[in-house]
Amino acid sequence: MKTYIEQHKERFIEELFSLLRIPSVSALPEHKADMQRCAERLCELLLEAGADRAEVSPSRGNPVVYAEKIIDPSAKTILIYGHYDVQPAEPLEKWHSDPFEPVIHDGAIWGRGANDDKGQLFMHLKAFEREVRLGLLHHNVKFIFEGEEEIGSPSLPEWIREHKDMLKADICLVSDTTMISESVPSINCGMRGLSYLEVKVTGPNKDLHSGHYGGAVANPITVLCEMIASLHDEDQRVAIPGFYDKVVELSDEDRALLSKAPFDLEEYKKFLDVAELRGEKGYSTLERTGIRPCLDVCGIWGGYTGTGAKTVLPSEAHAKISMRLVPNQLSSEITELFKRHFESIAPPEVKVEVKACEGGDGFLIPISSEAYKAGSRAMAEVYGIEPVPSRGGGSIAVLAEVQKILGIDPLLMGFGLERDTIHSPNESYLLKQLFAGMESLSLFYKYY
Amino acid sequence: MKTYIEQHKERFIEELFSLLRIPSVSALPEHKADMQRCAERLCELLLEAGADRAEVSPSRGNPVVYAEKIIDPSAKTILIYGHYDVQPAEPLEKWHSDPFEPVIHDGAIWGRGANDDKGQLFMHLKAFEREVRLGLLHHNVKFIFEGEEEIGSPSLPEWIREHKDMLKADICLVSDTTMISESVPSINCGMRGLSYLEVKVTGPNKDLHSGHYGGAVANPITVLCEMIASLHDEDQRVAIPGFYDKVVELSDEDRALLSKAPFDLEEYKKFLDVAELRGEKGYSTLERTGIRPCLDVCGIWGGYTGTGAKTVLPSEAHAKISMRLVPNQLSSEITELFKRHFESIAPPEVKVEVKACEGGDGFLIPISSEAYKAGSRAMAEVYGIEPVPSRGGGSIAVLAEVQKILGIDPLLMGFGLERDTIHSPNESYLLKQLFAGMESLSLFYKYY
Repeated sequence: MKTYIEQHKERFIEELFSLLRIPSVSALPEHKADMQRCAERLCELLLEAGADRAEVSPSRGNPVVYAEKIIDPSAKTILIYGHYDVQPAEPLEKWHSDPFEPVIHDGAIWGRGANDDKGQLFMHLKAFEREVRLGLLHHNVKFIFEGEEEIGSPSLPEWIREHKDMLKADICLVSDTTMISESVPSINCGMRGLSYLEVKVTGPNKDLHSGHYGGAVANPITVLCEMIASLHDEDQRVAIPGFYDKVVELSDEDRALLSKAPFDLEEYKKFLDVAELRGEKGYSTLERTGIRPCLDVCGIWGGYTGTGAKTVLPSEAHAKISMRLVPNQLSSEITELFKRHFESIAPPEVKVEVKACEGGDGFLIPISSEAYKAGSRAMAEVYGIEPVPSRGGGSIAVLAEVQKILGIDPLLMGFGLERDTIHSPNESYLLKQLFAGMESLSLFYKYY
Repeated sequence: MKTYIEQHKERFIEELFSLLRIPSVSALPEHKADMQRCAERLCELLLEAGADRAEVSPSRGNPVVYAEKIIDPSAKTILIYGHYDVQPAEPLEKWHSDPFEPVIHDGAIWGRGANDDKGQLFMHLKAFEREVRLGLLHHNVKFIFEGEEEIGSPSLPEWIREHKDMLKADICLVSDTTMISESVPSINCGMRGLSYLEVKVTGPNKDLHSGHYGGAVANPITVLCEMIASLHDEDQRVAIPGFYDKVVELSDEDRALLSKAPFDLEEYKKFLDVAELRGEKGYSTLERTGIRPCLDVCGIWGGYTGTGAKTVLPSEAHAKISMRLVPNQLSSEITELFKRHFESIAPPEVKVEVKACEGGDGFLIPISSEAYKAGSRAMAEVYGIEPVPSRGGGSIAVLAEVQKILGIDPLLMGFGLERDTIHSPNESYLLKQLFAGMESLSLFYKYY
């Protein structure tokens, strides 16, 4: 693959940039047309890469891109999953360059989606292209690229069920995760699930003058803060009754295995510029993000947030809350537990509304499979060191559904790095990783 | 005055509207030119009403409008204070009509500043005009209208000190407060002071993916919520050490007197649509807003606040916090106490910044003065019932300074009503109150 990359590098970059320039933000309805545009551009690239067919397939939500190349019905079939939607770019003022006008500097591509997931799915297009053009392809290959991963894949499970026969495969290959570090390759063998909710606390029925009413009327911001503060106990455990009931405790052996992953606490703190970390008592940092569930406030707003001083006792306060779940915790159950608990702790001075936004279950992947071994061998050859099996803290909600509906395991060969700050301003993707990813995926074809 | 109002009503409304149409929002720097425009329009109206001179006088901040009519150096001098700046109109989507395009319906004028304070200062212009035009004026009259009251009058004290001789007067007359109800006139004999601060809590140095880091890194929104929740104790007292040290406790007699003010708790709750009220244990609602200090969160923001779900563990969280103070609590001291306390309770996982925004001391006004008696007699004649001495929960920061620098007491003849929802969307001012105010002020000239 190295030589092939050398020969086509400039075209590769230009093709990837054509995807990054489309602001396919699934969370914001005003980008509807961009979703279609991005899906169509992907079809073009898939056909150019060598797919027999590629189509923009409608779903209940944003369209799904499907493509395939069938060389032999009796050969093994690789189903490649990726997503072409991206997170909102806000806060825009923190970007050093336009999030949707990618640039290259310091050895990386900078822009929204550079890694997550346009950069990573693009590696699959090019690894596939090489196999086809050099006449090396000995698998059937199918692609599904969805446009709703960042909003929890609300439509894809239904679409997969409807196209179950068409999607028949032996393995679902995914590049949408990170490696432990630049020098320590890893393969994710488990991901957390997600419950995402929005809450609204209403006090008085209108914004009030804080001088005339302050001290006499419950302030919904204060009440919301009290409620949020009560969601963790002193040991930083999530204080929602029943939250941990189904969490599988790992054996000491499994914990010992996980703790072998190289991790430098001081480097981690330095990277984040924090003096101290905070997490559930009794667990290490890697365990806290890998095998333990958690609750985070992703956004909060209420009252006057403009320049200067407005003395208002506001009518409403809002927050967005995400919970990361581990295997056996069901997203639908946790969402319901949260809702019931949050409503139950609301004091009588306010009204509370809880709205479920999205969710998905976590999952585990066996590391004994043929596919895992092929992936591991491929990455070992590229990085000169065997990849570590790791647990990712993030969620790809739909993969648990893929596992259930199609009865195949996902294999998570991700090449992102912490430094890429996906979901944040100044997302980037190292060219080195982009190309090492292409090489690894090309070798996966060889060894699988 | 009734006849005079009948004759000039339409012109009055048109003149007041010309003021309301100018978006003189002092908190937002983009309205700089509107401040100047509003000050100039006031000068025109003052000259037309009969002032000998009127000028837009520069200050360190927005200009001050000064006008005067001196009829006899040995006569008593009334100094009229008002402010031409208004609160921001946000949230705009909650207004039923354009905040800066006033309309009349349901017996009221609707628009930002309709009451606070353009509507109320306008009553003075017209009461003065009538006295001048009918040849009845037997006082010297001076006007100061400032453009920074809503941001805490940062420049006016200095301007007053510089023009101390010019401002010599016997009483400072102000209409910028509310009456107890439409049928229960009242005169404010005390106002609360203010300390307004902005706080910022910083966790990691960038927004993070809540899946990759959630559970391992302190979330600044959660930390801010915990810190805000800790600012009140179980008795709803402000839990800042030293906060109550200088608060004057009222005697049982004084409390009994205050409790005579008519107040319907059920009506109050119904007006606000809340099932329960919340406030400092051991005090009534009127005491909580009149004679007790308090702390409110006026605004909070952090993380993703747009549509849909963004799974972010944000870098920063912010809040705007106002404290209403009672006599003897010094704003500068309380601001410092808050700052010290808030910084001291920050856990090591975050960095905290506290910025003082504005402040002013509270004050009391003797009800035995000649001016108070004249005001009381005037309102009694208009409303058919003697006004109740009350304590306003709001703050007019600069009046304590006027008291100190010029050595004269303010007299607060305000005609606003709770229903006017000043500082909120759909601010209004009843025409009935506008005209009753003009009558009362005209009678004040007669009886003072």
